[in-house]
Amino acid sequence: MTYPGASSLNIALIHHPVVNKRAEIIGSAVTNLDLHDIARMARTFGVAEFFITTPYKDQQHLMEELLAHWRTGHGATYNPARKEALGIVSLLDSIDQVIEQLTGKYGRKPLVITTSAVKQSNLISYGALRRKIDKKDPVILLLGTAHGLAPEVIQDAEGTLPPIAGAADYNHLSVRSAASIIIDRLLGSKEK
Amino acid sequence: MTYPGASSLNIALIHHPVVNKRAEIIGSAVTNLDLHDIARMARTFGVAEFFITTPYKDQQHLMEELLAHWRTGHGATYNPARKEALGIVSLLDSIDQVIEQLTGKYGRKPLVITTSAVKQSNLISYGALRRKIDKKDPVILLLGTAHGLAPEVIQDAEGTLPPIAGAADYNHLSVRSAASIIIDRLLGSKEK
Repeated sequence: MTYPGASSLNIALIHHPVVNKRAEIIGSAVTNLDLHDIARMARTFGVAEFFITTPYKDQQHLMEELLAHWRTGHGATYNPARKEALGIVSLLDSIDQVIEQLTGKYGRKPLVITTSAVKQSNLISYGALRRKIDKKDPVILLLGTAHGLAPEVIQDAEGTLPPIAGAADYNHLSVRSAASIIIDRLLGSKEK
Repeated sequence: MTYPGASSLNIALIHHPVVNKRAEIIGSAVTNLDLHDIARMARTFGVAEFFITTPYKDQQHLMEELLAHWRTGHGATYNPARKEALGIVSLLDSIDQVIEQLTGKYGRKPLVITTSAVKQSNLISYGALRRKIDKKDPVILLLGTAHGLAPEVIQDAEGTLPPIAGAADYNHLSVRSAASIIIDRLLGSKEK
């Protein structure tokens, strides 16, 4: 579901294929925390839709129960702001399904952009991506869980954002922190 | 504890005095999640120290147990990067204790800056605060839990950062998201 004032930027939190600390391809578990923190942040900045993908049906059922509580159950009356944030969330099986659904919605394939904690060869700058979003080009930004997106996902994308770097030589952001920073850089107010 | 390359920016996550949804002054509960997400983000960007304040001894004991697991227990060998992030965390009773400790460390009182989801009268811009940090002026940035810092804390501060605003008229960020965005704006790489 989308809403008035939404941008052309969509995001997807990917649970498969991602890598573990030994760089093996795995499927990770969905978390309630990622759902709430990222949905609230996405809705605040005007992300159009927030997709959560996992091929595992038991994981999808868990997410559906959590979503139902806040969208139609007791949570919806207890906290209407949370209902609004979770209104932009959809569950899908795979990255391909996300792209297919957005292609149907926009009438053309969205630009597929990946994120990584390591510098990739197909870099696109925050500024360049921001300008595409300002022009209303449909974009889907893929965020990896566990130790990041599988290499094949990054290679198939049209571009990858530079890793987030601070002053220090340490980089271990949670996906929730990374997503917040990336979306602020792409959609945040320019008066800072 | 501090580390080579750390900036002059310190942060404190405040659990009292904060307000609830009815704007009453309360003490909130510490969470494992805030500890990990904010410590990882702070260490990535070069925040010098991350203070967690609560006057409640049972809450302090809970935090001490979590910290011990990752700093000296099994977690320290299982995940050394997490140990490093949690190395910058200290538990204190109050905002006054944080200011006192930093005054001792720096030999002068740090600039006390607050954050709020509502525009305050004592505004300081991100750019102005960034310039102070670039000059190595000691700064302590106070982050509120629950529904935000008590009004008296904001009034006593030397400045308050503008609220984080996206394109949309909805603003319900978690303190983890807000902290990530604020620290990126203050310490993140300028090449974006």
